[in-house]
Amino acid sequence: VTADRWSDEWLRTGIGHVSTDSISVRGRDLAGELMGEVSFADLAFLLASGRIPTPQESSLFNAVLASLAEHGLTPTVLAARLTYTGAPESMQGAIAAGLLGAGRVFLGPVEDTARFLEEVLARVPPERRSDDAALGRAAEDAVAEAAANGLRVPGLGHPVHKEVDPRTPRLYALARAAGLYGPHLRALEVVARAQRELGGRALPINGAGAAGAALADLGFSPLVCRGFALLARTAGLVAHLAEESERPIGMRLWEDVERRSGRARREQDEPD
Amino acid sequence: VTADRWSDEWLRTGIGHVSTDSISVRGRDLAGELMGEVSFADLAFLLASGRIPTPQESSLFNAVLASLAEHGLTPTVLAARLTYTGAPESMQGAIAAGLLGAGRVFLGPVEDTARFLEEVLARVPPERRSDDAALGRAAEDAVAEAAANGLRVPGLGHPVHKEVDPRTPRLYALARAAGLYGPHLRALEVVARAQRELGGRALPINGAGAAGAALADLGFSPLVCRGFALLARTAGLVAHLAEESERPIGMRLWEDVERRSGRARREQDEPD
Amino acid sequence: VTADRWSDEWLRTGIGHVSTDSISVRGRDLAGELMGEVSFADLAFLLASGRIPTPQESSLFNAVLASLAEHGLTPTVLAARLTYTGAPESMQGAIAAGLLGAGRVFLGPVEDTARFLEEVLARVPPERRSDDAALGRAAEDAVAEAAANGLRVPGLGHPVHKEVDPRTPRLYALARAAGLYGPHLRALEVVARAQRELGGRALPINGAGAAGAALADLGFSPLVCRGFALLARTAGLVAHLAEESERPIGMRLWEDVERRSGRARREQDEPD
Amino acid sequence: VTADRWSDEWLRTGIGHVSTDSISVRGRDLAGELMGEVSFADLAFLLASGRIPTPQESSLFNAVLASLAEHGLTPTVLAARLTYTGAPESMQGAIAAGLLGAGRVFLGPVEDTARFLEEVLARVPPERRSDDAALGRAAEDAVAEAAANGLRVPGLGHPVHKEVDPRTPRLYALARAAGLYGPHLRALEVVARAQRELGGRALPINGAGAAGAALADLGFSPLVCRGFALLARTAGLVAHLAEESERPIGMRLWEDVERRSGRARREQDEPD
Repeated sequence: VTADRWSDEWLRTGIGHVSTDSISVRGRDLAGELMGEVSFADLAFLLASGRIPTPQESSLFNAVLASLAEHGLTPTVLAARLTYTGAPESMQGAIAAGLLGAGRVFLGPVEDTARFLEEVLARVPPERRSDDAALGRAAEDAVAEAAANGLRVPGLGHPVHKEVDPRTPRLYALARAAGLYGPHLRALEVVARAQRELGGRALPINGAGAAGAALADLGFSPLVCRGFALLARTAGLVAHLAEESERPIGMRLWEDVERRSGRARREQDEPD
Repeated sequence: VTADRWSDEWLRTGIGHVSTDSISVRGRDLAGELMGEVSFADLAFLLASGRIPTPQESSLFNAVLASLAEHGLTPTVLAARLTYTGAPESMQGAIAAGLLGAGRVFLGPVEDTARFLEEVLARVPPERRSDDAALGRAAEDAVAEAAANGLRVPGLGHPVHKEVDPRTPRLYALARAAGLYGPHLRALEVVARAQRELGGRALPINGAGAAGAALADLGFSPLVCRGFALLARTAGLVAHLAEESERPIGMRLWEDVERRSGRARREQDEPD
Repeated sequence: VTADRWSDEWLRTGIGHVSTDSISVRGRDLAGELMGEVSFADLAFLLASGRIPTPQESSLFNAVLASLAEHGLTPTVLAARLTYTGAPESMQGAIAAGLLGAGRVFLGPVEDTARFLEEVLARVPPERRSDDAALGRAAEDAVAEAAANGLRVPGLGHPVHKEVDPRTPRLYALARAAGLYGPHLRALEVVARAQRELGGRALPINGAGAAGAALADLGFSPLVCRGFALLARTAGLVAHLAEESERPIGMRLWEDVERRSGRARREQDEPD
Repeated sequence: VTADRWSDEWLRTGIGHVSTDSISVRGRDLAGELMGEVSFADLAFLLASGRIPTPQESSLFNAVLASLAEHGLTPTVLAARLTYTGAPESMQGAIAAGLLGAGRVFLGPVEDTARFLEEVLARVPPERRSDDAALGRAAEDAVAEAAANGLRVPGLGHPVHKEVDPRTPRLYALARAAGLYGPHLRALEVVARAQRELGGRALPINGAGAAGAALADLGFSPLVCRGFALLARTAGLVAHLAEESERPIGMRLWEDVERRSGRARREQDEPD
């Protein structure tokens, strides 16, 4: 084996391979071992982690994806629909446009919460992570640091669900029932308490935050947590674009905005 | 009720709604009726169709999504990884870039096949759609027309799987086992036969084509068939980007391409 | 020179190269020969065509780009702004979302018109392309064929500019003044006439159509015509996003839509 | 004027308006005052700033855009080409994919440098910003802070142009010649000096950094600096995609990667 023969080692991937007569995914035969054997969500779990989830993990994972799939006529849904208005021939463009707004403000908190909780947990020795007092001090420190740096604590508060985000208690109940109430979900509750005490205002744990904590407890990195939020939201976008193709909103929204914008301009320019 | 009060009727959506304390999806309470009750794939089915699939439909639907999720280091996967190289802070941008190549050549055939089969079936009176002779004549006409217009028949042939696409026989077997071998799956087989006879060359039914036919038999429009292909592929992209963040390919691929491109240029410009 | 040494020939590009101490664009030194020497538009022309435009060509090319840069709060601008709402950290994502709607309905007609006019011109022998009678017959045939196939003739009509698109006469005047009134611009006028006679309704040449014809007369392929429309529109998107970062529309548009959509739903569900 | 009549004030935009017979851009008539009167770059400047640049500003602005337009077969160019491979029908999707990689690593430094220099300048009273000693102390503080936080100083160093980025001295010379060598360009030189002294290693000012400083001296916000980088790069992408449509790289790059990746895998799995 010469150096040259090994020189393409960097091009290896563990995700999937194709040959003339087979497709393998994470080392398993797609047609023979996976299609008809594992659900789509379990396959997504396998793709990202390399292993098939337990039934309990699968149940919680499906619930997390379900919780993130749809939230009404959000800005990202409107962006997807307006993109379809201009390019109805390119479904992939409209879906992509709908995902591009899943950033810092909307679905990014799934990743940000997972990352923040990792930092909180890193402040506590592993053997003390179920000790609420130790966790509480770490959470208080992290919340105080965020405040000192002018940063928001991710995973808390919601512009619509001001008291309770209905997804959160349900996700916590499902995680407990599945025996998967882990350190991230616990830490998020402790963080919410610390924020209430230090910030003086009770902010509910939002659905994105709870989803990020649950995914982190399932073993996923913050980046993959964000990825699954995008996967979930894609299901909602497909449905909105199917509806847009039959009952369009985009074109009339444009006319509505143009008309009102023009009227506002004329009124200011031409006083009564 | 005045005209004005009804004037926003065009802004209604049947997909999802939010209020301060609830989220509804297709008229069902997300937290109370869906999370923990339906799988993610079933929720995607509900979102697009308005109804929860039967267990048989769910089984086939999951298998179709699984069949489309991953296919190695495809051009779209490489595009996603190279985008991550430049913008690792924006997972949504890399996923979007990966989806944008799912067009006419790669995942578009899922939609195109569904559309082509609809046209074939429209040539046959509904009551004769399980009559192979009637279906055969319609398929021959449609294939001949495509050839006359210089168009390829979608759903047939594959650059890698030249003899058999391993996903296809598995999907057909699963559809038969679930009692869901319907007119589109049947028509696709008839079309492949007509193409072989008229074109003189046996082309296997490819995985995208079989998936499109199966989704159409599940009741989805061609546009939604494409949408589900994008949903499935998103799962593969998440996994590739997770791997890219740990074992990067993008940066070295750039260097490799630049080096070889520059060498090719110098060799032609400066003869020995 | 062995076969292997030449095997990377397919990786050559004529667009640009970098080395440790230089950057070349279309064979010219970027820093020494282009920066400060050619305008940005001329560089874009050079990049796509391999040559620097004449002053007349440059003048018309700049006017075409200017004509396509901005058109108010279009669906694509709204999509870009709504994407910024969710992901303000990713300017590139908002711009990309804004471009993705530049498809069949909005900026695609620049490309489609160029392509349609190429087909019209291909029906006339080169030496007779300034013969209005010969051109007229070719245009009538092409328009009749489009109608027979249920297709719209691209480049004609506009939802807002119903009588005259103000960009069109200006572009024609500039092309004539520059001595660049060529076969595509001429053919588009003939096509508009044929459409009026055959379709029974006068439709103005729209700005996208005139731009496509002018770009085609400058020697660009239909694909590049579309590319320049995207380049032009990017300038408008940058300005809209700069404004959005200071005077946001996206978040309030979401609230406005959600509120009206919810009210419309309740009114229909709960009769007075 | 009632409250309600004014309630759409938030929908006003200063960028552009359309009416049945006119299009206005920044308050000027597009057809009558801008097309044929201002260059495309000047229109982009007007769109973002609200004013037409002076000839000196225009000259520097064109040079900055030229400097950023093209840099060979970069990861973002490869992503655009690979996207075209899969979806040749959607030029806008390929351009969008090419822009999505213009993030933190590649074109983001244009924005990051502008932002960093703003912070450096904010540490110095306006009347002392041409005092190199005062500027030097502010730069040292900012560089030391970045180092303490484990952050790179933006605008310095380049993976290819290790000694000198050829765009930088040219841009500085053009700025001086135009009388537009301003506080940001000056501060960037001071920052490079501080980095060399504190970091112990001379890193050249890269082209993205110089472009960001020059654009900031022209009065643009960091966000708009990033926007213009995207505008410039779009010109390069149009050219690469035009070439890709005639001499494709994407499909062979896929085959090349798949073949080498598969061989690397087999070699490791099956030892000699």
